Amino acid sequence: MTLTQLLLALICILTAAKMGGALMQRLGQPAVLGELLGGLIVGASGFGWIDPHAEVVHGLAELGVLVLLFEVGLETKLQELAAAGTQAAMVALIGVLAPIGLGTGLSLAFGLPWLSALLVGAALSATSIGISARILSERGLLATVTGSIILGAAIIDDVVGVSLLGIMKRLAEAGTTDWLTVGRITAMSIGFIVLVMVVGRLFVPVLQRVVAMLRGRGVLLVTFVTFAFLLAYLAERFGSAALIGAFAAGLLLEETEERHQIETQIKPIADLLTPVFFVSVGAAVDLRLLNPFDPSAWPTLMFTVCLVAVAIVGKLLAGFGAWKGDANRLIIGVGMLARGEVGLIFAGVGATAGLLDPGHYAAVIATVGITTLLAPPWLARIAR
Amino acid sequence: MTLTQLLLALICILTAAKMGGALMQRLGQPAVLGELLGGLIVGASGFGWIDPHAEVVHGLAELGVLVLLFEVGLETKLQELAAAGTQAAMVALIGVLAPIGLGTGLSLAFGLPWLSALLVGAALSATSIGISARILSERGLLATVTGSIILGAAIIDDVVGVSLLGIMKRLAEAGTTDWLTVGRITAMSIGFIVLVMVVGRLFVPVLQRVVAMLRGRGVLLVTFVTFAFLLAYLAERFGSAALIGAFAAGLLLEETEERHQIETQIKPIADLLTPVFFVSVGAAVDLRLLNPFDPSAWPTLMFTVCLVAVAIVGKLLAGFGAWKGDANRLIIGVGMLARGEVGLIFAGVGATAGLLDPGHYAAVIATVGITTLLAPPWLARIAR
Repeated sequence: MTLTQLLLALICILTAAKMGGALMQRLGQPAVLGELLGGLIVGASGFGWIDPHAEVVHGLAELGVLVLLFEVGLETKLQELAAAGTQAAMVALIGVLAPIGLGTGLSLAFGLPWLSALLVGAALSATSIGISARILSERGLLATVTGSIILGAAIIDDVVGVSLLGIMKRLAEAGTTDWLTVGRITAMSIGFIVLVMVVGRLFVPVLQRVVAMLRGRGVLLVTFVTFAFLLAYLAERFGSAALIGAFAAGLLLEETEERHQIETQIKPIADLLTPVFFVSVGAAVDLRLLNPFDPSAWPTLMFTVCLVAVAIVGKLLAGFGAWKGDANRLIIGVGMLARGEVGLIFAGVGATAGLLDPGHYAAVIATVGITTLLAPPWLARIAR
Repeated sequence: MTLTQLLLALICILTAAKMGGALMQRLGQPAVLGELLGGLIVGASGFGWIDPHAEVVHGLAELGVLVLLFEVGLETKLQELAAAGTQAAMVALIGVLAPIGLGTGLSLAFGLPWLSALLVGAALSATSIGISARILSERGLLATVTGSIILGAAIIDDVVGVSLLGIMKRLAEAGTTDWLTVGRITAMSIGFIVLVMVVGRLFVPVLQRVVAMLRGRGVLLVTFVTFAFLLAYLAERFGSAALIGAFAAGLLLEETEERHQIETQIKPIADLLTPVFFVSVGAAVDLRLLNPFDPSAWPTLMFTVCLVAVAIVGKLLAGFGAWKGDANRLIIGVGMLARGEVGLIFAGVGATAGLLDPGHYAAVIATVGITTLLAPPWLARIAR
């Protein structure tokens, strides 16, 4: 990718994001929906100007979601997340098991082989922390009980989702189930967050001393962002997910004095990079594979409609995991609807491993796209 | 490049930049020198951890230098630049012609063919606006007459340098001189800045209206940065250089009310991205090709020593282009010493076109590296 191509892509992405965002806000919808729709227009479904798989654009999008999660971590009070703990865990559990069960069952009913059906089910289990967090933040719900449960469940869900992804990848490669590997990967993913929150806490004072010792412009920002990148790297490296590491870094730094300074400085970076991520997610969806006027697309369309229904029902069931009275179960269910990036990665892995033919691949992508597009306006409607 | 590789590269780059920068500041040197040295250590000359040619790192470095130039533009008062105009033009003229003449002559004396010799000379004519601007800004010299002359001359120099690069590229491809092309490219490069400063001024009020109309978080920043990317794209597209476009965008927005707000928000982005550029420049230099204990490297070493001398003399002569009494001629000469990225691009083009064998290529790279490393401490010493 030459510099002119990169600049053109960024101009296109940022313009689509801000135009779409402003339009949706005029209509009383969350800005993130506008960014996703902007992505549809400039991406594969529309003009095809943006290739979200181009290496530099993809890299910027990945950094964007890391910065977003770091920022969300900075705004999340650990005590409140812990208070929502048991309920969040229950919501996450139902939110993973229900879509997997329903999605796998539906796929088997449509005649898919067992391993492919399991992959479709697993793809439905994902929750996009990025999109959930963005919507919650836009609606001012991050600090409520309902918000904490959604975010807590989304994080647990993502840990489980990424473990599942690793397991599915190995299953697809081996064509068999190795329960030892399954257990090991799952334990490592969950262990990582626990370890980081315990051991990482000891490193924060060291980090503060480094900042005080080094001098010059931008030292605080660069040191703390490097710390976030380091935890993201370690998370990714040891079988968890990079975004969980970035989020953990934010959580750890939330308790420091420098927090407000960092928040002010990270904001412009997030403003510039996160639209790259959301436009990319939108740009990766190709709606033309589901053209209702093309008879050859009808079987795929039928499967997609059922899959979307199952995807919605599965996550709405998750809301019932919040058994106490002060949480809104419908908001929780809808708040976890958006599959976003993790769902897309599942579909990609399935296609690469030969588990999904183009039709079923398109169906999974479309389901991810539709639930992701549906969540923001639905949540906006019920969370006034 | 996977996400783990990208994160590891960024952790390494940002750590090297801040450690090097802090160390140099302790020693009373500019931080940018520390970032270049940090690049030497983690790059080709040292541990080889960083490959500055990796697509995503390269893209981030290029965006970094654009953001830096945009920021410099925001801090540059056009009236003062115009006031330094004639002297800056004269400095730039000598600063281009003297190194070309001396470099080409020296290369011919060392037995290089005519076209290769001309390429070496042209590589010496470059001035790194990025590094010059950074040093001037660190020393608080941006607002002085001397600073304006250096910056003005560096900009003119870069326009001429990029034109020369285009010309050399065509010459290398064709193996012949086409004066019509030469004239056209030169005219377009100079014409671009003039056009932007005249026509671009009309677009700034439109931009301000767009910002007022759109709503939501980060609209001001994203709109103005997109504008900078747009001018950078147009500059690159129409035969000028992207960094000139970004600089022009900054100059145009310097006159707006929103200037201070933008400056505050662009700072964290520059803090994070510009070290990627400076560490990359350092990482691209491989000092081992000039090992004095390896006899096979002696001819290259001899040529390099002469080339460095010629490169220094050529730019010091440029200082005499400032004929009025209130400018410091030595500071001007030293301020234009750093060749930086443009010199490296020249060397790359020469190698790709087969005009430079590995030895002469290493010599040009080393000369660019040495002058670039020499400029900051020298300037720090004389500009107290």
